[in-house]
Amino acid sequence: MKVRWKSWEKRTQTPLLVLAVVFGIAYAVPIVAPGAAPWVHRLCTQVEWVVWAAFALDYLVRLGLAPARWAFVRSHPLDLLAVLLPMVQPLRLLRVVSTLLLVGRRARMAPQITLTTYVAGAVVGLMMFGSLAVLHVERDAPDGNIKTLGDAVWWSFTTMTTVGYGDHAPTTGLGRVLAVGLMLSGIALLGVVTANIAAWFISRFDRDDAVERRQTELLEALTLEVRELRAEVARLSAPPEPREVPSPSAPRS
Amino acid sequence: MKVRWKSWEKRTQTPLLVLAVVFGIAYAVPIVAPGAAPWVHRLCTQVEWVVWAAFALDYLVRLGLAPARWAFVRSHPLDLLAVLLPMVQPLRLLRVVSTLLLVGRRARMAPQITLTTYVAGAVVGLMMFGSLAVLHVERDAPDGNIKTLGDAVWWSFTTMTTVGYGDHAPTTGLGRVLAVGLMLSGIALLGVVTANIAAWFISRFDRDDAVERRQTELLEALTLEVRELRAEVARLSAPPEPREVPSPSAPRS
Amino acid sequence: MKVRWKSWEKRTQTPLLVLAVVFGIAYAVPIVAPGAAPWVHRLCTQVEWVVWAAFALDYLVRLGLAPARWAFVRSHPLDLLAVLLPMVQPLRLLRVVSTLLLVGRRARMAPQITLTTYVAGAVVGLMMFGSLAVLHVERDAPDGNIKTLGDAVWWSFTTMTTVGYGDHAPTTGLGRVLAVGLMLSGIALLGVVTANIAAWFISRFDRDDAVERRQTELLEALTLEVRELRAEVARLSAPPEPREVPSPSAPRS
Amino acid sequence: MKVRWKSWEKRTQTPLLVLAVVFGIAYAVPIVAPGAAPWVHRLCTQVEWVVWAAFALDYLVRLGLAPARWAFVRSHPLDLLAVLLPMVQPLRLLRVVSTLLLVGRRARMAPQITLTTYVAGAVVGLMMFGSLAVLHVERDAPDGNIKTLGDAVWWSFTTMTTVGYGDHAPTTGLGRVLAVGLMLSGIALLGVVTANIAAWFISRFDRDDAVERRQTELLEALTLEVRELRAEVARLSAPPEPREVPSPSAPRS
Repeated sequence: MKVRWKSWEKRTQTPLLVLAVVFGIAYAVPIVAPGAAPWVHRLCTQVEWVVWAAFALDYLVRLGLAPARWAFVRSHPLDLLAVLLPMVQPLRLLRVVSTLLLVGRRARMAPQITLTTYVAGAVVGLMMFGSLAVLHVERDAPDGNIKTLGDAVWWSFTTMTTVGYGDHAPTTGLGRVLAVGLMLSGIALLGVVTANIAAWFISRFDRDDAVERRQTELLEALTLEVRELRAEVARLSAPPEPREVPSPSAPRS
Repeated sequence: MKVRWKSWEKRTQTPLLVLAVVFGIAYAVPIVAPGAAPWVHRLCTQVEWVVWAAFALDYLVRLGLAPARWAFVRSHPLDLLAVLLPMVQPLRLLRVVSTLLLVGRRARMAPQITLTTYVAGAVVGLMMFGSLAVLHVERDAPDGNIKTLGDAVWWSFTTMTTVGYGDHAPTTGLGRVLAVGLMLSGIALLGVVTANIAAWFISRFDRDDAVERRQTELLEALTLEVRELRAEVARLSAPPEPREVPSPSAPRS
Repeated sequence: MKVRWKSWEKRTQTPLLVLAVVFGIAYAVPIVAPGAAPWVHRLCTQVEWVVWAAFALDYLVRLGLAPARWAFVRSHPLDLLAVLLPMVQPLRLLRVVSTLLLVGRRARMAPQITLTTYVAGAVVGLMMFGSLAVLHVERDAPDGNIKTLGDAVWWSFTTMTTVGYGDHAPTTGLGRVLAVGLMLSGIALLGVVTANIAAWFISRFDRDDAVERRQTELLEALTLEVRELRAEVARLSAPPEPREVPSPSAPRS
Repeated sequence: MKVRWKSWEKRTQTPLLVLAVVFGIAYAVPIVAPGAAPWVHRLCTQVEWVVWAAFALDYLVRLGLAPARWAFVRSHPLDLLAVLLPMVQPLRLLRVVSTLLLVGRRARMAPQITLTTYVAGAVVGLMMFGSLAVLHVERDAPDGNIKTLGDAVWWSFTTMTTVGYGDHAPTTGLGRVLAVGLMLSGIALLGVVTANIAAWFISRFDRDDAVERRQTELLEALTLEVRELRAEVARLSAPPEPREVPSPSAPRS
């Protein structure tokens, strides 16, 4: 069971990644080119649905392969939510969030992905989708000031790095919710960068090495001593010839 | 004594938590709905007083159960202040700060609360109360720019994450004092996030593992050697028959 | 020599600290109350000079007590600069910076001051002097927007926490130089806060505890074994009576 | 081969550093003094080309000295890009970026450069070039607000420290790309500062010292015990006189 689970995860990894990229494109196109032909918009929407469905299917298969199904469901509440939500509420943003969630949860299972790459990827993904979503939301806001893709990307950078010039800022509630997401992931980014450097530094530090060196010395001394001891005991346990095979004539001792 | 103290803390934990939530609601209502009926305002004020009183009582009981009272008072100056201040100065904001202080101090005693959950909780609480308080203060300011709850929450987010767009900022002295509190706790938040990640990273680092592996090897070799040694000594200590059962005719030796 | 040095540092610590506080007051008064009587301004200026002189004197005495004078001078270039500069250029700001520098360098020698308290103190001091200096500089700027002490303090908070709303910002070159100082110390503040929490966390982590526990177990097992071994050897080394004292009549063995 | 490589790096280090400084000047002059005589502009451009060429040459020589050329090329893709790009696209900014890249890659090879000094240097360099480049780009922007060198430097400080007042911010696409670079290096700066302090702190922490002290005690006790054991065994292995040298007349007992 466990084996088939792993093999499933391994085999589906790359195709799902490709689908995630496709999803990104399908999401970007209608926002970047709002004046595109209707069939383009329709196609993109369908692609979004397909990708979401693929990830939902992946979730169900993994659920099916899970040794303890109920435990799996309880331990992956977000995945479940991401699978159910778009059925209940087919809003575009919801669908996007759900798919991103499923992609993210799935990505974290890839064995070769470290926290750094994961956060880096999440940051890039969030920034891209954040810019697009904010642009989508704010473009039609009466007193909005994020009208072009350039502004949106620039704004998301100033937000994630917590620089926050304020030359561009969301004015609608939805836009601000998205902004908060960007800010928080920006803090995470900051944290990971710092943590990485800190870990790298500290790994350089030979801290309380003194104690450890002391111990090693003690151990080496001890080992030597025991070895000599063994030798002595060995000598001792061997039949002591000189005293055991005397010549009768020889004077005792 | 110690036992009763602990049991008191344990038994009162949940009810006090509930009271804290009630307090939050009682504080929020009059600010969110300023046009509510007078009796609502009165009720909320009374609830605030009751909750504060409950926490003050809790402090007094703990003081009563303390093995060394004077030491307890000296080691909990903030609690004392939080208990006395509202009596001296029944200002609303003071009462709120006092209650929050008591809640916070009390929460930190809960054994299962780690620093992270504590800071997270403090951040959420501060943000909620900060938004409400700033809204309360700034709404009536002539040149204030935080007039709605949405603006207040949005502002507190931009402040805590140190993004600081500046599209909304307190203009009154009191509002700015509250803002400074949010900023500082924002920095704490940042610190805890980073520290968490860093600790997680560093715990992954197998630093000076070489030395430790060396030690373990030495120890295993040593244990083996000692075991063999014991065997040898055992063999040695056993009555060596061949030498002890000679034939009577044999020359004694 | 070293002894007298230490004793000098110890004895002068408190008075110099008091002088530093006095200096702060003497610096604040003319800025906070620009309309004060001329003699007040004169007095404050004189006090500033006196405090600076006291610290300069302290530097010279320490130099005199130093075992290797030239080495001391070379290892304390900033102190020397801080002592000489006000003689060369009796500008107010220069004098302030010099005195702060001397105070800071001196404070760092106090044995009981940890990095945290040092940075915290530096941050508070910098913020206070920064606010005052920026107020002093910007108040007379034609298009300045920091005109009151409140604005200055608020601005320095938003700067140090790197929130930077931008509702107030220095416009003169000198004000901006001061601002940069605040920003950099704000980053240091952030760093120390994070580092503190991180260190606290990591100290909690029982990292590669597995290896260590393994070692301890091995050691305990080993100790036990050696103890038993000793007992056996002891038994062995004792004169084995039963085999050595046979009754002549009894059949041997 | 390896030896000649190292000697080359060592010998060329200082001259290349000097060239880097010269490059900085040659880059700054035309921007700071746009009204300079045409021959100055021409000279600066030529100097830039020369410095770039010098670093390109250095790359080629190192490539020539590399034991495995192809591996060297693959492991230094940025260097290659930096060498080729200006030939393909002789844009000023491209040339600057390329040279900075080459300088940076080269600097990191200097053995005595730690991460801190490297990042500090990178930050200073980036800030200087960032200010100049942004000034160059924004000065001619119709609705730009960075018109003087002072503004540019001030802006780059507020950006790198992530304060971001927003009183000055780039408005052109190119200026914003440069700004993003500054922001990211600002985050790196923050990370390095924090990491430094954290590492310093943690190196102070005597973490899980308990376990280690326990081990050392165990080891010392054990060593003692083994020593005594050896003594006993030695006593034992020595010919036990009393039993071996009886007086013939004495009754055996």
